[in-house]
Amino acid sequence: MVVTNNSGPLAAVLTGPGEPITLHNFAKPNVKRGEVLLHTMYSEVCGTDVHIQQGKLAGVPYPIIPGHFAVGTVEETGGDVQSVSGRPIIRGDIVTFLDVHATCHRCWQCQVNKAPTKCPSRKVYGVSHSSNEGLLGGWSEMILLQNDVAITHLPENVSPLRFIAGGCAMPTAVHAVERGKVGLGDIVVVQGAGPVGLCTGIVAYHSGARVLIADKSTVRLEAAHTLGFEVLDLSTSDNAQSLLEYATQGQRADVVIEATGSPSAIQSGISLVRDAGRYVVVGHYSDAGSTTINPHLDINKKHLEILGTWGVEYIHFHKAIGLLARKELTPSGIKIEDAMTTIYPLHEVNKALSDVRERRVVKAVICANSGD
Amino acid sequence: MVVTNNSGPLAAVLTGPGEPITLHNFAKPNVKRGEVLLHTMYSEVCGTDVHIQQGKLAGVPYPIIPGHFAVGTVEETGGDVQSVSGRPIIRGDIVTFLDVHATCHRCWQCQVNKAPTKCPSRKVYGVSHSSNEGLLGGWSEMILLQNDVAITHLPENVSPLRFIAGGCAMPTAVHAVERGKVGLGDIVVVQGAGPVGLCTGIVAYHSGARVLIADKSTVRLEAAHTLGFEVLDLSTSDNAQSLLEYATQGQRADVVIEATGSPSAIQSGISLVRDAGRYVVVGHYSDAGSTTINPHLDINKKHLEILGTWGVEYIHFHKAIGLLARKELTPSGIKIEDAMTTIYPLHEVNKALSDVRERRVVKAVICANSGD
Amino acid sequence: MVVTNNSGPLAAVLTGPGEPITLHNFAKPNVKRGEVLLHTMYSEVCGTDVHIQQGKLAGVPYPIIPGHFAVGTVEETGGDVQSVSGRPIIRGDIVTFLDVHATCHRCWQCQVNKAPTKCPSRKVYGVSHSSNEGLLGGWSEMILLQNDVAITHLPENVSPLRFIAGGCAMPTAVHAVERGKVGLGDIVVVQGAGPVGLCTGIVAYHSGARVLIADKSTVRLEAAHTLGFEVLDLSTSDNAQSLLEYATQGQRADVVIEATGSPSAIQSGISLVRDAGRYVVVGHYSDAGSTTINPHLDINKKHLEILGTWGVEYIHFHKAIGLLARKELTPSGIKIEDAMTTIYPLHEVNKALSDVRERRVVKAVICANSGD
Amino acid sequence: MVVTNNSGPLAAVLTGPGEPITLHNFAKPNVKRGEVLLHTMYSEVCGTDVHIQQGKLAGVPYPIIPGHFAVGTVEETGGDVQSVSGRPIIRGDIVTFLDVHATCHRCWQCQVNKAPTKCPSRKVYGVSHSSNEGLLGGWSEMILLQNDVAITHLPENVSPLRFIAGGCAMPTAVHAVERGKVGLGDIVVVQGAGPVGLCTGIVAYHSGARVLIADKSTVRLEAAHTLGFEVLDLSTSDNAQSLLEYATQGQRADVVIEATGSPSAIQSGISLVRDAGRYVVVGHYSDAGSTTINPHLDINKKHLEILGTWGVEYIHFHKAIGLLARKELTPSGIKIEDAMTTIYPLHEVNKALSDVRERRVVKAVICANSGD
Ligand SMILES: [Zn+2]
Ligand SMILES: [Zn+2]
Ligand SMILES: [Zn+2]
Ligand SMILES: [Zn+2]
Ligand SMILES: [Zn+2]
Ligand SMILES: [Zn+2]
Ligand SMILES: [Zn+2]
Ligand SMILES: [Zn+2]
Repeated sequence: MVVTNNSGPLAAVLTGPGEPITLHNFAKPNVKRGEVLLHTMYSEVCGTDVHIQQGKLAGVPYPIIPGHFAVGTVEETGGDVQSVSGRPIIRGDIVTFLDVHATCHRCWQCQVNKAPTKCPSRKVYGVSHSSNEGLLGGWSEMILLQNDVAITHLPENVSPLRFIAGGCAMPTAVHAVERGKVGLGDIVVVQGAGPVGLCTGIVAYHSGARVLIADKSTVRLEAAHTLGFEVLDLSTSDNAQSLLEYATQGQRADVVIEATGSPSAIQSGISLVRDAGRYVVVGHYSDAGSTTINPHLDINKKHLEILGTWGVEYIHFHKAIGLLARKELTPSGIKIEDAMTTIYPLHEVNKALSDVRERRVVKAVICANSGD
Repeated sequence: MVVTNNSGPLAAVLTGPGEPITLHNFAKPNVKRGEVLLHTMYSEVCGTDVHIQQGKLAGVPYPIIPGHFAVGTVEETGGDVQSVSGRPIIRGDIVTFLDVHATCHRCWQCQVNKAPTKCPSRKVYGVSHSSNEGLLGGWSEMILLQNDVAITHLPENVSPLRFIAGGCAMPTAVHAVERGKVGLGDIVVVQGAGPVGLCTGIVAYHSGARVLIADKSTVRLEAAHTLGFEVLDLSTSDNAQSLLEYATQGQRADVVIEATGSPSAIQSGISLVRDAGRYVVVGHYSDAGSTTINPHLDINKKHLEILGTWGVEYIHFHKAIGLLARKELTPSGIKIEDAMTTIYPLHEVNKALSDVRERRVVKAVICANSGD
Repeated sequence: MVVTNNSGPLAAVLTGPGEPITLHNFAKPNVKRGEVLLHTMYSEVCGTDVHIQQGKLAGVPYPIIPGHFAVGTVEETGGDVQSVSGRPIIRGDIVTFLDVHATCHRCWQCQVNKAPTKCPSRKVYGVSHSSNEGLLGGWSEMILLQNDVAITHLPENVSPLRFIAGGCAMPTAVHAVERGKVGLGDIVVVQGAGPVGLCTGIVAYHSGARVLIADKSTVRLEAAHTLGFEVLDLSTSDNAQSLLEYATQGQRADVVIEATGSPSAIQSGISLVRDAGRYVVVGHYSDAGSTTINPHLDINKKHLEILGTWGVEYIHFHKAIGLLARKELTPSGIKIEDAMTTIYPLHEVNKALSDVRERRVVKAVICANSGD
Repeated sequence: MVVTNNSGPLAAVLTGPGEPITLHNFAKPNVKRGEVLLHTMYSEVCGTDVHIQQGKLAGVPYPIIPGHFAVGTVEETGGDVQSVSGRPIIRGDIVTFLDVHATCHRCWQCQVNKAPTKCPSRKVYGVSHSSNEGLLGGWSEMILLQNDVAITHLPENVSPLRFIAGGCAMPTAVHAVERGKVGLGDIVVVQGAGPVGLCTGIVAYHSGARVLIADKSTVRLEAAHTLGFEVLDLSTSDNAQSLLEYATQGQRADVVIEATGSPSAIQSGISLVRDAGRYVVVGHYSDAGSTTINPHLDINKKHLEILGTWGVEYIHFHKAIGLLARKELTPSGIKIEDAMTTIYPLHEVNKALSDVRERRVVKAVICANSGD
């Protein structure tokens, strides 16, 4: 890892697919009107970052500074700037922001299809900005928030570490649970006990559901168990349906939410849904190939709803943060910041990335200014 | 075809899969309290009847009197009987009825899952009653409506022939359009120009949509064209997507409704849906095999909804009849009873069945008392 | 109170409006096919019972045995009888039942309007059966469940006392929260801290909402506080809006749910709802007079939804029981059976009724066989 | 009326409440990047303009150029500009635009409450721009569209006169019908046969409803009748309920939509709704006082939904234009541009305004460049 030697903020740069991350000093940005400069506290490494490093995501303008979710303190503002709730943003405030910005609100997707996550103008911090544009990613000592970024203060009872423990998985989970119309009394099965799966379990639990999490990795099943969830242990049996029926005295699930990214999960997941239930796909953020489905048995005769879940809107981010403020966040009462996170200093970002890729950790957190 | 010789009502009986239909005289039924005896005017032959004759439908208690949709005049009532709207049913009235009855309204499917079309107690005229139980199918000079059957008068401006021209396809179409949340201004593509497809087009049109119907059969495309629909002609090109984009100046469909029964229609149909749109499966009433789907491209990245459509409830039947009362039912103004029906006397029911199976007619109507 | 002297089960009878309740022995019923005879454990006294005694409810066929919610053990069954989930009902089982039965499932309200709580055929235990018909009310040592009553076992972790502590208020609350589309992250204000209001708070909390309960009675505010809710104390200030804005840093409520029965609550409640929010009316089960509303300011300019909530369906009853099985039912962790109930033996039912009427207790529970 | 004498475009200016409109020449604007200068064909006079002239609308920055809906040809563009559908906007194109712009898409209303019609930043052409800012209203020979205005071409089969005949009433009607969840087979009663009421009837009709329009003005009833609607004639009877039951054989309405602006319409309108139906308020755009409502009888016992309808979003505007392209727009087949409009040259705008105020015309259209 090459670290250049000057006084500006240090940031991690990915120069292209398959390349290692290197650290570089950048000039401290000029903060223009409406912009906010953050002193980064935490950012995260997620599955999308692994895909970006592997070159599996289309349209990434390498070189980039990865890291799409982050939290920090305000270093400087370009004049008066307000949060989404209208509260002034002041030097020293602890804030976070939605990674997606530049949605145009004027195009067909935004105005007619009401699909803002599909707006062609949208940009994402840590994903669709080149590092040549500046400090527009989270794996950096400083992040520059452009004047159209939606910023919010963390509530008093949400620590920065708790926020990043949820990270990008939590609003994704809020969106998936919303798509599944999960409500009071529903039986919900989550396929996959990674960050998105565990967060989906948490969100469904707080929406009034009984939650069971299925996985075949004993490490991940242990994580689900620690958070207080019932589990469907697929490490010893691949008959998820009989495990579910045993646990529910013969019922199947009102809603099954796929958070594995594996094509083979689709048909086995559908088999867990009751007639006239819902099946949500949220784990397929990159192309892992095709699978087989029977239109009569799997869809029509079941009177099934299948729902894809692409991206998040601010409302999901907002609800995720509100949820993090709940005192008892997990069924067991254990704190997610204790149970789910492993912290790495910025200069160990390559290790963090490989630990996530190899599933040695549930959630890797980057402490961007570990010398502070 | 064997016709027994006595004075009771004549009915067509299917003794088992692959067998020809034969006509038999039955004893005129005793009409018990709450029951209604119909003098049949018209019944129909639909794709389900073909599947029943081919043995492709599970649980059929052969021998049966097929025919699940019918209309007739009231011959006799068992005391005071009322329609769903509370109007007395009197000898001579022209009435029809929902084929599905005996839904229990007390089981888990009925009360908790709110999936009455999945109630294990439900029975269907012409499908799940043995002919040993009596005149409980439409291919018969008389039909006995048990005391739990939902009966309704035809509105003045819905002739019996127009009713049967819609037949079982019309409430099925109402359900499919409801599942697709089709509304004002939607672009809707219907895959398949058979009875269900054409009726789906009609219902979507009256829900405010622009409708395009896709098929590769020139006979069926001609039918769609005659009713006034735009068509996607797949007889000369298999690139439905480019045909659609040409017709809509680059847009794709808000909703695509599958009414073909062919597994290969699924992935090509999904490719016609815009991001964040809906794909309704209504044509897969029997198992025609599996197909391939890509969870990332076809579901998650598209933010797609896929919706199966099983059975109908009374509300769909009710709305279908209300729709038939509209003066201008089709975009071209042509009457469906003129454009879609071929009438057969009861003793030609085997020909009607083979004509439907071979797609030589759009809709075969049985005139049960052609000697009247 | 007159108690007749013979060996059959004892039941409380209300002979007419304004009359005191008297106890009578009834003949032990013959249990016909499909029926279930319950040995009553608990029933309850609610606001509806007060209205019935005051003659404020239309269509009550005095004399009646009041009491519409109850729980008991199975004394006898008429042959094989099953619960809604298909589990056999056996002598000795602890079961409860939905008070509403005889919904016809065939009329316009049931089939077209999809408003089964408005079906003219429906009957309610403890409300619309005369005592001349038999033991069809809860204030009785035994209750006869007719063959169309929806029966369910209590889950293991729901004690009979916890069930009756929720009582009829809990499914009513489930319905109100459903009408209000309460979801994750919503700010919900409940007007009124009686049984329905407190249960509404509990249901909204488990649906992911932040809940504030408003009342002016210090006794009721204390109850809300004990259960762990934030309160809007109207005993010292009548400015609910400024109390709410103080508690929420300037926000108003996404949903306000009225559970007071007072006409003046309407306009003050609406003032607490944010633009484009929802206002649910659930407390007006009898006519307490009219009030004033400004269509421009209160409805149109606010882009408001107002939602009435009449009766409950089985699904609400089902979800209420499922919710009662949650380990931590209240925000404070206190058990509702400890915090909300006062128990009376059957012969003190007049005292129970007056204590409810005078609001001296939150929830009066009748222990029907206190000598057991 | 004073007309200044120079060569720039002429526009009508309202200097303050109660003042007459006067015409003034303005300098031809410099068209900046992303802006579009329109040569106005038609604009309209609606009820809101009457309220603005009477000073009944809060926050109007007099002097203003009124007129919020208009259609024209493109005179000049500031570089490349695109419509919402991505089509280039070229000199000579016939286009229209949504009057509402400058919605921030970043505030609590926009992002959390999802209530963009309540965004405090939003601006409206003809309503919230001072004439000192330039040609930002429709009663003018030219209109300058700022770079954030959503612009669309008229479809080929929508003439400019047909567009303005619908005018602002049509998207308002689309919104009201959407709020009422009007669908196939619904019985819809519209209260009030002014422009919004008639357009609401048209939109509901194309959503599959049976529509009845109630009014007491014989002129307006005649207009409703000419368009082909059933009417409830309140000029001879004030018993709307018995008129409705007569017309529907005893049914009441699934949905009633208020388009009168009269507080007394509320309770009488609610009486026309069936149990568990919907009541939409869309006519109360200004404060006309309060009315009386009974929370038990009018809301709770009816299980009623009441829905306010504030402002429009682009989607409503889009759907309105799409609907105008239907060949048979009205039930009778008569064209709205023939049946509903009266055309005035720009210099007769005061007469147009008084004719609308006195209800002497259904819809007043301003032909801004009548000398062309
Ligand atoms: Zn991520
Ligand atoms: Zn966009
Ligand atoms: Zn059929
Ligand atoms: Zn059932
Ligand atoms: Zn009924
Ligand atoms: Zn009660
Ligand atoms: Zn805004
Ligand atoms: Zn207007």
